Parts: sequence; structure tokens; C-alpha cells
Amino acid sequence: MQYFDIQSTDKQISEAIRHKINHKTKPVGALGMLETVAAQICLIQQTLSPQLTAPQILVFAADHGIAGEGVSSYPAEVTRQMVLNFLAGGAAINVFCRQHGLALTIVDAGVKGGFDGLKDTILVSQSMGQGTRNFAREPAMTLAECETALAKGAEVVRQVARTGCNVIGFGEMGIGNTSAAAVLMHKFTGIPLAGCVGRGTGLDDAGLARKHDILQAAVEKHACAQTPLDILATFGGFEIVQMCGAMLQAAQNRMVVLIDGFIATAALLAARQLHPAVLEYCVFCHQSDEHGHRKLLEFLHGQPILNLGLRLGEGTGCALAYPILQSAVAFMNEMASFESAGVSQK
Amino acid sequence: MQYFDIQSTDKQISEAIRHKINHKTKPVGALGMLETVAAQICLIQQTLSPQLTAPQILVFAADHGIAGEGVSSYPAEVTRQMVLNFLAGGAAINVFCRQHGLALTIVDAGVKGGFDGLKDTILVSQSMGQGTRNFAREPAMTLAECETALAKGAEVVRQVARTGCNVIGFGEMGIGNTSAAAVLMHKFTGIPLAGCVGRGTGLDDAGLARKHDILQAAVEKHACAQTPLDILATFGGFEIVQMCGAMLQAAQNRMVVLIDGFIATAALLAARQLHPAVLEYCVFCHQSDEHGHRKLLEFLHGQPILNLGLRLGEGTGCALAYPILQSAVAFMNEMASFESAGVSQK
Repeated sequence: MQYFDIQSTDKQISEAIRHKINHKTKPVGALGMLETVAAQICLIQQTLSPQLTAPQILVFAADHGIAGEGVSSYPAEVTRQMVLNFLAGGAAINVFCRQHGLALTIVDAGVKGGFDGLKDTILVSQSMGQGTRNFAREPAMTLAECETALAKGAEVVRQVARTGCNVIGFGEMGIGNTSAAAVLMHKFTGIPLAGCVGRGTGLDDAGLARKHDILQAAVEKHACAQTPLDILATFGGFEIVQMCGAMLQAAQNRMVVLIDGFIATAALLAARQLHPAVLEYCVFCHQSDEHGHRKLLEFLHGQPILNLGLRLGEGTGCALAYPILQSAVAFMNEMASFESAGVSQK
Repeated sequence: MQYFDIQSTDKQISEAIRHKINHKTKPVGALGMLETVAAQICLIQQTLSPQLTAPQILVFAADHGIAGEGVSSYPAEVTRQMVLNFLAGGAAINVFCRQHGLALTIVDAGVKGGFDGLKDTILVSQSMGQGTRNFAREPAMTLAECETALAKGAEVVRQVARTGCNVIGFGEMGIGNTSAAAVLMHKFTGIPLAGCVGRGTGLDDAGLARKHDILQAAVEKHACAQTPLDILATFGGFEIVQMCGAMLQAAQNRMVVLIDGFIATAALLAARQLHPAVLEYCVFCHQSDEHGHRKLLEFLHGQPILNLGLRLGEGTGCALAYPILQSAVAFMNEMASFESAGVSQK
């Protein structure tokens, strides 16, 4: 099933990009990963003079039925409370977006309690209801809900594209969502569940063991879920599936797509099952401290820009890595070449 | 011999710092290294509301007699050419300083050819002459020159302090200076020379082997150099020793000191031999791709903020890491607490 029309980038320009990078006044390769990121952005934008315009972070929030099994250190109402914190400007993602001039939009993808009557310029309602169903007992959502969530996520990105945005980061908030992400990782990569399940917001050893057992039982219960869409519907969250649709739409729009931590990477993993070319548009912003993220990045051959031991979500890794992308673009556009600066080469 | 008066930070405030960090609206520890950096800046500034003011990068440039042995891929005149590139605004460090609003000063610590008659607002002349002597044959400088270089480096920082600067990064330019830094590392850490010598700006295997043999012979020739100052004078460079003095003065002034790559860390290693407390003021900005830097950071128990495979010097790692320091300060000052935001705790 093709939901999106995602084109591979045209590699004809690659040699010209490499030539420009190698003639900057520095030893070949001396800017390390900045060079890789610069080349990727040039390839996405099909230019030797890349620009990042109207950057935006979208944070998708939703609740998870699986949270009812006690798989998180925090009560489910924290999802809604944290959304209110986002709207009040007091969360980490607000701080980092202000710092870097990133627009921030919060998407209610299905937060318990909702936000009826609340008007806020940065809140977009795409709610699918009061959170997913508990996948320990039944599929988290129906196939129709899953397809609707993909479409809703894509629609938000189409709106954002109208602002002139060509670089977009995705974050999330949802108590219980490391459980959903761990199962998606297990199902899509084949890595044993124990390698995918982590402490989330801070489970102790007993809590972690319990979380694993609950998820293992759920995986066995839903063994018949095998197609990407089946798996996404059975174990996903509304914020994860909307994020997945949003990532695919962003790639279709040839945006630079900033990938945050464990949950966002799990959403990308699902997106890649549907459209592998999405990966060409993705910059992996950081390696999370959540158990499983390193292996997940390895599976995707993703080189993270930052490795700061973050495990917060909210898109904070995207926001913190953003100045590095700006540096990559800036050196391409502003640095002198050996020729222009009159510096001797090797 | 005490050149500087560097006080340890007062740890009484540590518990209050930790309390403030742990009550921000995030799981405990979820901002990873940002929390460590924030706590260190608070400790240096003895406050729960840290500020970074008038940030500046100082790039020390000088030539090395050892370059005459063919230990670099580039000819020695590149040092002077690159300084002219800095003054013209075309080097990587210019680009990244402009991006982050960092003041940039270039210090001629002893560049061959000099800059007579050249007036430039960002160039400071502290030249010790036409580069060091060739330590394959004789000590790079005299003890008196070494002490003068320490004092000159310190003087630049005292000037910078008058601008209100409380966070300062150090970079360097000097063809041949990975050779000097490798020997300093070997002498001060006891790590075998082969673990300290790397490819610099891009030696091939044969060049690397040759560099190692030249340095090994020099180490044996000057086996009697044993005190920190002897070692620094025998193998150091004018930019390295001035940087060492500058770092010590910055710590004495209670500035946050940004440590760049391999050469800058070797200068810090020398500074630490003279005044161990200097380390409390240092933030390790990145792990260089230069062979030896990882081991050197481990020796100093330094956790680098970035690991982007950079090997350029110029202070580029400091400039690229600077927004992460700003993020650390920003979350301390701007993020809501659980109490203020009405978010449930565990």
C-alpha cells in the first residue's frame, strides 16, 4: 500500500558537493560529521548553497492504554499536564526552541482528558480520542484508526510546509510510549524484546522486569500481527502513528527531517517499512540513553549528531542538535576555499 | 613554582544546585550531560542562576621548528596563510563564531614571517619570534622564553576579562603542532609515544611512522627534561605555552574555560601540572578524531560534549559546543519546576 510519494534524492550532484567541501580551507574530512550532514542537506535540496528556512518542531502527544498496566514511573495524567506545561512555555523543549528560533507546535493526537475550550496558538487538535486501547488486552487501535492517524499526521506537515519550513523535527509526549516503541522495534527489527525494552522515565530493576514480561505476553498474544500496518495498529500510539505519517509527508515535501530519540526513531522505523526512501531525508539528532536506542540506530545505519545521555523526548534532541545543522550549512556557504584565500594545499 | 592563584570552587552550593536541577519538569537525570555542564557552571559562578557573558574565542598561532623535519602534510607557510584567512573572516572558526555571536581574537604567538604593518582589530601581537627552534636538535625554547610565553598568554586573558567575558575558548593554528602536543602528552601522562602520535592534518601510514620515529628520537635526546617547565620549554610551541598561561589566567579569573581538541588539551595537561585546580573550570568541548585525544581525555577524566570526528583545531570544537553550554544555562534559568507547572511527580 502506497500512502505517500517519496522520491529518492538525485545523486548526480554528489560529486560537485564533495568537490566544494574538499576545497574549503581545512584538511580533507577535518570537519567530520559536519561534512556528512552538509552533503546530505545539499543532496536533499539539490544545491551547493543549502538554506534552512522556517525551522519547526512538532510535538505529538497522546495517551496509551498500556499505561494502565503500570509500565511507567509516572501516572498517565502527566501527559496532559506536560502538554499544559508546553503551552505555558515551561518545558525543556520550549526553552531550547526559544534559544534557537525554532517554531514549536504541539499536536494533541489523543490525550486523555483533552483540551476542550482551550485556545492556544501553538496547540493543534488532531485528537483520535482518549488515548489508545490497552494492547495487553486488545489492539491499540483499529486499522482504520491507524490509517486516519497517518493521514492526520501528514496533514499537520502540509500546514507547516505553507510557512516555508524546509527543516522539521519531531518530538513526542505520552506516558507509556516507550512500551509501544519497544514492541514496534522488536517486531520491525527482529531484535529480542529484552534488547528493546528500557527504563523509560526511570523504572527500577523490578519495574523493568515487569514491563518486559507484560510486553512479552502482549507480543505473544498478538503474534498474528505481521504486516507493517497491522503491527503499527496493534502496538502503536496515536502520537507515534501521526508522527510516522508526518515524517513521510515531510520526506515527500523534501524537507530535512530531524529524528529525536527512541520513540521518534521507532516511528521512523515504521515509516521506513512503508517507504524506505524516507531515510534519505532523515538526520539522526542524538543517541538517547534509553536502552535500545543505540541498537535501533545501528539497525538503521544512523549516525547520531549528539550523544549527551538525554532521555527526555519532546523533540529536545532535535532542538539541541539544530545549531550543528546550521553550522554545516554555514560552512558550506561562508568558508573560503584554498584558492580564494590563497592558502597552500598539501 | 606558583605562577597563578587558582582557587578550587566552593562545593557548599552543590546540594542546592542538584535540588534545583532535579525539580525541573523532567525525569531525574533526563537531560544527561546538560545537567552535568549546568552544575559545573553553577559551581564556577557560585550561583543557581548562571549567565554566560561576552563569550570569546582566542586562537593562538605560532610556527614550530619541528615542522622542518617534514612531520606535517602541509608546508609551514600555511600557519601564516591561515592567520590571514582568519583575519579575512573565511576560516571555519570565523563562520562558527559569527553563528553564535562569539568574539574572536587571533593571537600571533610567534608566526614565521610575522604581520608587520598589518593592522587588524582582531589580531593581537604577542609574538615570541619566528617560531620555535627544532626540538629534534635542541630545546624548542629557553626556560626564560617559556615563562615569558606563559605570562603573555595570561596577559591576553586579563585584557579579555575587561570586556566582561566569563566564558572563554582556546584554539590554535600551527603547522607541526600535533608533534609538539604528542610529545607533551607522552611526557606528562606516561602513555607510550605511539599512543600519542597521530596523522595530524592527514599523514599517510609512511608519514605517520616517520613522524613517530622523529619524535621518539627527540624524546630520547632530551631525556633529562623532567620538570613540567623543562618539558614545556623543550617540546612546546609558543602558541601552546601561551595557551597554557591563558588557561591558567582564565581559571584564576573564574571563567568557564572551553577546551578544544588535541593541541588545546595538551596545553591544558601542562597547565594542570602547574595548577591541578584548573581542571574544575574546564568544559571539554569535543573529542577530536586525532589519534591520542580520546586517551588524553580519559587520562583527564574529561567527558567531551561533542564527538563529531572533527580534527581541525582553530577552536572550532569550542564554538560548535557553545550552544550546548547555552542550553545548559537556559534550562536552569527558564524551565518550570514540577511545583510551578503543576505536574505530578513519580
